[in-house]
Amino acid sequence: MSTAEIIAVGSELLLGGRIDTNSLFLSKSLAEHGIEVRFKSVVGDNVDDIGVAVTNAVKRAKLVLITGGLGPTVDDVTHEAVALITGKPLRLRPRALESITTRLQAAGRPVTQNQRRQAFLPTGAVLLHNPSGIAPGFAVKWKRSWIVCLPGVSHEARRMCAESLLPLLRQEGLLSSAIETRTIHTFGLLEGEIDMRLRGIISPTSPFRLGLLASPLGVSVSFTRSENIQRKQAGKRSVMKTAASLDSLMDAVIAKLGQHVFSINGQTMEEVVGQQLRDRGLAVALAESCTGGLIAHRLTQVAGSSAYVDRGVVCYSNRAKIELLGVPEPLLKKYGAVSAQVAKAMAQGIRTRSKADVGLSVTGIAGPGGGTANKPVGLVYVGLATAQVSYTNEFRFHGEREAIKLRSSQAALDVLRRWLCHVS
Amino acid sequence: MSTAEIIAVGSELLLGGRIDTNSLFLSKSLAEHGIEVRFKSVVGDNVDDIGVAVTNAVKRAKLVLITGGLGPTVDDVTHEAVALITGKPLRLRPRALESITTRLQAAGRPVTQNQRRQAFLPTGAVLLHNPSGIAPGFAVKWKRSWIVCLPGVSHEARRMCAESLLPLLRQEGLLSSAIETRTIHTFGLLEGEIDMRLRGIISPTSPFRLGLLASPLGVSVSFTRSENIQRKQAGKRSVMKTAASLDSLMDAVIAKLGQHVFSINGQTMEEVVGQQLRDRGLAVALAESCTGGLIAHRLTQVAGSSAYVDRGVVCYSNRAKIELLGVPEPLLKKYGAVSAQVAKAMAQGIRTRSKADVGLSVTGIAGPGGGTANKPVGLVYVGLATAQVSYTNEFRFHGEREAIKLRSSQAALDVLRRWLCHVS
Repeated sequence: MSTAEIIAVGSELLLGGRIDTNSLFLSKSLAEHGIEVRFKSVVGDNVDDIGVAVTNAVKRAKLVLITGGLGPTVDDVTHEAVALITGKPLRLRPRALESITTRLQAAGRPVTQNQRRQAFLPTGAVLLHNPSGIAPGFAVKWKRSWIVCLPGVSHEARRMCAESLLPLLRQEGLLSSAIETRTIHTFGLLEGEIDMRLRGIISPTSPFRLGLLASPLGVSVSFTRSENIQRKQAGKRSVMKTAASLDSLMDAVIAKLGQHVFSINGQTMEEVVGQQLRDRGLAVALAESCTGGLIAHRLTQVAGSSAYVDRGVVCYSNRAKIELLGVPEPLLKKYGAVSAQVAKAMAQGIRTRSKADVGLSVTGIAGPGGGTANKPVGLVYVGLATAQVSYTNEFRFHGEREAIKLRSSQAALDVLRRWLCHVS
Repeated sequence: MSTAEIIAVGSELLLGGRIDTNSLFLSKSLAEHGIEVRFKSVVGDNVDDIGVAVTNAVKRAKLVLITGGLGPTVDDVTHEAVALITGKPLRLRPRALESITTRLQAAGRPVTQNQRRQAFLPTGAVLLHNPSGIAPGFAVKWKRSWIVCLPGVSHEARRMCAESLLPLLRQEGLLSSAIETRTIHTFGLLEGEIDMRLRGIISPTSPFRLGLLASPLGVSVSFTRSENIQRKQAGKRSVMKTAASLDSLMDAVIAKLGQHVFSINGQTMEEVVGQQLRDRGLAVALAESCTGGLIAHRLTQVAGSSAYVDRGVVCYSNRAKIELLGVPEPLLKKYGAVSAQVAKAMAQGIRTRSKADVGLSVTGIAGPGGGTANKPVGLVYVGLATAQVSYTNEFRFHGEREAIKLRSSQAALDVLRRWLCHVS
């Protein structure tokens, strides 16, 4: 398997206003073709800084992929940096100039001196055609590595990756079969608890590496075939054994994590719940207090959700809870708006009024204000009501307002998911 | 000015499934305190790879900021990598263990052997308290640089940056005045239109560089003092002249872009509208169809929003529009749910029923299905109603479902903002 490094060039990527998103799809495309990205870096529009990054990268990787800095302005210096490092001086490449000219003329714009600069490539470089933009890309072989430069504009780089870069790498024999990876998404367990449950599930000689990743939406568990271990194995037989063991490994992990697993195919919680509702022909109605519409927003991000999202109400105030959901005022006075009793009444209220199959409610304290000793910031109740049953769950989350809203929405959808698992 | 490098640790950041977003706010915070980030890099959970990245970074920067790899699992190896590189062996730090224990006990969870590992820090390291999570951070001085390790969990790193990192850097004399940058947020103009309006506004000798960045939330226009030009200038006088010209430049830009400018101090649209409502003592009630709760969610992301968000309803179906808002059925039949007439009736309905000061409504086709020749995907109506006036605006957006929802929510909030500008 070959390794690659990606270098994103652009001062705007360092200032905190913007992020390098190109490396996301480039890493993915390369992984799908068996090339592992081992380092990614971001440098400013500066010849020296680009030079240092490329020099370091060439020592480690067979493919050094640079994005950005190919534009017409004076701060675009990637051509220059690569020419300096490799000792291959820039020369006007007539075919590059021709494609720049054609494109600009089609748009009714003049070919300026700056735009001509984009046609100067390091001597001996392979020209990479840019079918959706002006700046041509190029590739230079240096010290047994390929240095490939693509524009920073995302849709241009994406298309050139598929149409020029991958064919070049294939021709050079750098591509192989995809890096195998699988991810399981869980909710309700801490990273450390999952680690304990999965202890020993991967033997020291297993070709897979386990990775855990925590976020307010839960912990994801991923398995990737580890390159180093794979190298030690030999022959076709061990590869086949490995493939079989990935399936049994997944089964073993799911058995250990049980109901906490909500997705094994990359689906988000809202997609999983949406699919369950659709399969069962059920509709949900939402009553949101502290999540402020986030659950409705997430469910309706999924195309076709109008089939199962009946309606939602966002009711911060007691008056809205009384008017929109019929929560009894004495209940609010006795237990407070953030209570299991009110969560239950909210779920029942939205269900009865909407006549939807399921009512789902959330009430809690998202902070930063509003917490007390008895009811701290992060205390959240989720209620679920159907024609037959109604119940509530209490959660205690930590974090800032945004994280608490996000965790609460995920917890509420998880309550709904678990209920739907038992409905045929 | 000091320079910094940021290293994000995590194999998941290399595989193309996830992106390093921490460096975004870290770069910004550092820039605000005069520290320029010159390189950013991403490495996997691998002791050797982290070591190489740190060794390279220490050669160039006074501050090397590492995020991630501080968790309790076996693939979290940042502690180990930093200990190896600096030759400062890991030792149990009782205060770190104490805070881990306290936090786990409060959550009713056991302290596992793995969690104890998180309390082993390089000898002599400064312990950085993590008030919103388990993993402590730490800072080590090595070869005249500071190596600082923060958790990868975003809200934890964010808070520790403000509460621990910046104070440490201040104490070490590494902070100075901010890198001058200003950003203007606009909505309703295309990038190309802004480019045309601002043509020639910056002279070739100006020390500022103009940057435009388009997103579904609008186009942001930023000015950054260019370091290279600044270096060529000398003496206090030219710096003062520059400062004065930044203000007049901002004034000139605002004059060219007019009402399309919604924020000049970094505030988001929901913060701007929230502040306007609060200042005027007004409350808004929302009736959302195609935005599915996104407007309510965005407004309630702002702390204290319960003061001015009265309530919201999410009404996809005609039945919900009739029952929750009192939209007349004949209107729905005659004009269709996606029409100026229904948008207006929705805004009036939510206002009358809630008795809030302003009713704001959105109805449209987010896609991918549901579009027709007359009413294509992306057609959106926003309605606004008060006791005195009611009106609607038509928009035609392009993009995928998520982008259309986001643009629609921004358009609706912008309609509200423009109305609020005229209310004293």
